[in-house]
Amino acid sequence: MDVYEQSLALHKAKKGKVAITSKVKVENMEDLSLAYTPGVAQPCREIVKDPKTVYEYTSKGNLVAVVSDGSAVLGLGNIGPEAAMPVMEGKAILFKEFADIDAFPICLDTQDVEEIIKTVKYLTPTFGGINLEDISAPRCFEIEKRLIEELDIPVFHDDQHGTAIVVSAGVLNALKLVDKKLKDVQVVINGAGSAGISICKLLLKIGIKDITLVDIKGALCTGEEWMNDAQKAMAEITNPQKIRGDLATVMKDKDIFIGVSAPNIVTSQMVSTMADDAIVFAMANPVPEIMPDEAKKGGARVVATGRSDFPNQINNVLVFPGIFRGALDAKATMISEEMKVAAARAIASVIHEDELSEDYIIPNSFNPKVAQVVADAVKKIAVESNLVKQ
Amino acid sequence: MDVYEQSLALHKAKKGKVAITSKVKVENMEDLSLAYTPGVAQPCREIVKDPKTVYEYTSKGNLVAVVSDGSAVLGLGNIGPEAAMPVMEGKAILFKEFADIDAFPICLDTQDVEEIIKTVKYLTPTFGGINLEDISAPRCFEIEKRLIEELDIPVFHDDQHGTAIVVSAGVLNALKLVDKKLKDVQVVINGAGSAGISICKLLLKIGIKDITLVDIKGALCTGEEWMNDAQKAMAEITNPQKIRGDLATVMKDKDIFIGVSAPNIVTSQMVSTMADDAIVFAMANPVPEIMPDEAKKGGARVVATGRSDFPNQINNVLVFPGIFRGALDAKATMISEEMKVAAARAIASVIHEDELSEDYIIPNSFNPKVAQVVADAVKKIAVESNLVKQ
Repeated sequence: MDVYEQSLALHKAKKGKVAITSKVKVENMEDLSLAYTPGVAQPCREIVKDPKTVYEYTSKGNLVAVVSDGSAVLGLGNIGPEAAMPVMEGKAILFKEFADIDAFPICLDTQDVEEIIKTVKYLTPTFGGINLEDISAPRCFEIEKRLIEELDIPVFHDDQHGTAIVVSAGVLNALKLVDKKLKDVQVVINGAGSAGISICKLLLKIGIKDITLVDIKGALCTGEEWMNDAQKAMAEITNPQKIRGDLATVMKDKDIFIGVSAPNIVTSQMVSTMADDAIVFAMANPVPEIMPDEAKKGGARVVATGRSDFPNQINNVLVFPGIFRGALDAKATMISEEMKVAAARAIASVIHEDELSEDYIIPNSFNPKVAQVVADAVKKIAVESNLVKQ
Repeated sequence: MDVYEQSLALHKAKKGKVAITSKVKVENMEDLSLAYTPGVAQPCREIVKDPKTVYEYTSKGNLVAVVSDGSAVLGLGNIGPEAAMPVMEGKAILFKEFADIDAFPICLDTQDVEEIIKTVKYLTPTFGGINLEDISAPRCFEIEKRLIEELDIPVFHDDQHGTAIVVSAGVLNALKLVDKKLKDVQVVINGAGSAGISICKLLLKIGIKDITLVDIKGALCTGEEWMNDAQKAMAEITNPQKIRGDLATVMKDKDIFIGVSAPNIVTSQMVSTMADDAIVFAMANPVPEIMPDEAKKGGARVVATGRSDFPNQINNVLVFPGIFRGALDAKATMISEEMKVAAARAIASVIHEDELSEDYIIPNSFNPKVAQVVADAVKKIAVESNLVKQ
């Protein structure tokens, strides 16, 4: 059986992946009188008196909703909310396994932006955090932005920020290895959709100055007519050299290539035009923009992909469990840009400088230290920047 | 410490009562590839191809939402959705402990009928059933009615039907004991709100002909001006003798008194005016309409209350776990009146005729047989009446 057949058999045998369990025993009338009536009235009364004690007496503080409308699921597209359930359940159990967070799949039967926003707001008495998942662009931007503005609990769209944070961690470590500085390097990002734009913003935030985004029609550059609004905004703050042209043109002399685009669109010849000690993040899945051996042939020193069968896997599981663990522990009111930067630095820090190598710039997805290190860093920033519930 | 202090301490120690766990292990990259990407794409694809397989490959078929807006919580009133969380979590773990159902608390930050209906509908891709809880009347009627009409999964407002079903079970057994027939007995129900009306409807359904509802202003009777719409509708199908007057007047010669009203409003003198072998269900909580010893003094032969420290406790936990277990197992599209009647008969049947006594007409809340017997009965009716998903 291949991985798909095995997965199907597993899902069928278990009838899904999440279960709800009780943290207290209910075996006799006395247990019942404490967990339910009449005793349960007391925590209710306390929460009425002091609403913030909902974090003391209920599960809210450790509950995260994994919310999707099924509009952009994996590489499968707009498959709808029922068919999205296996993915959201999968995400939920990863929260549990990696950070002991109780996450619950919420697959919504609407793809209307306003309805999604309203529904999530109605659900917040139950949840301590909201992880948005597999919602298509540009709807995901508005939904996340509005929920961050209107809610006082952490809201995080993992598809946008998760990859950006791991890529930033990888870039930090790769630059240590090749002994180049953030402020000096030139970066090309191929793919100017939500993932590329999100990566670009975080790389600017960690201190990179020169980034050029490239889309299917060429480099994003002020004055280009074909750009959408999000791309126009990015053109204002990127491409300082005003380079125009296709990917091959833009890649020349660049220190770092980051691909969130399509399989096999970069050749070793193109890599050979990059600067010395080139760094290549080829994250198209399952077939990357260029295979690692081809990139190396073209002179790349460090190569990362989205795949677990090559070194340096860019995997969101390094991010979201720790980010939410830290935000929940701090009772953070939001996940700020500074917290994302702190998460990237924390992931990078798990590999000591003397352990760093071409094949080891990103911690293994199952490295047990990562989630806690990320959580500690995020919690620290939340507290320092006073983005916590009083 | 009293039960309230103990309960508060328990809730604080455990930080709430529900947890989410994983049914599959995720310990290495291979596990991850089956539970999550890339393998998870396969169950997604199967559900796209054949939507009903969502019941095979996801947790939906065993997931019940315990939905409240916090508007009528226990005896506490309209305490809002956060303060309702301890109760909804308690209900959720009872589903688990009594019927192995994965139930999840959904406390909604809206008390608008249309918004609640819409939100629950948006949530249905995740859930196999909806248990409405602690929503105030008359809003709860409209919400339940509309959701039953508009959804193809079971929707059940336990506050209305749970008590009605256990009372019906108790009445069935009490009548066996006193050797009276359903069609011959006269019943008075004190309290003509949602609970009383719901009990009345189910008692009519099981075959009782003569029921009179009494509210604070007296007996419901056609022609009375003070009745609300729900009460007017009930007056049309009850009180065949057209009795007018207060509770004491109506109680005369009745075989069964059912109280869902207020503490200490029935005297032993009033009970003494009832028919021989009177049956008294005094369910005001925590102080009943009349204490069991007083009722006995007035000549009552069988007394039931809502309390666990007296015999014959009317406890909803005898109902909702089994009702939902049966409905989920049958993939029922709704919980019909026939299923409720079947549940009542099933609960009654757990006590064999030779075990029946004045102090044992209702099974103990922790009787391990009840949930399965109820589930089997409900499932049977669902299948026979073809109220199941194809």
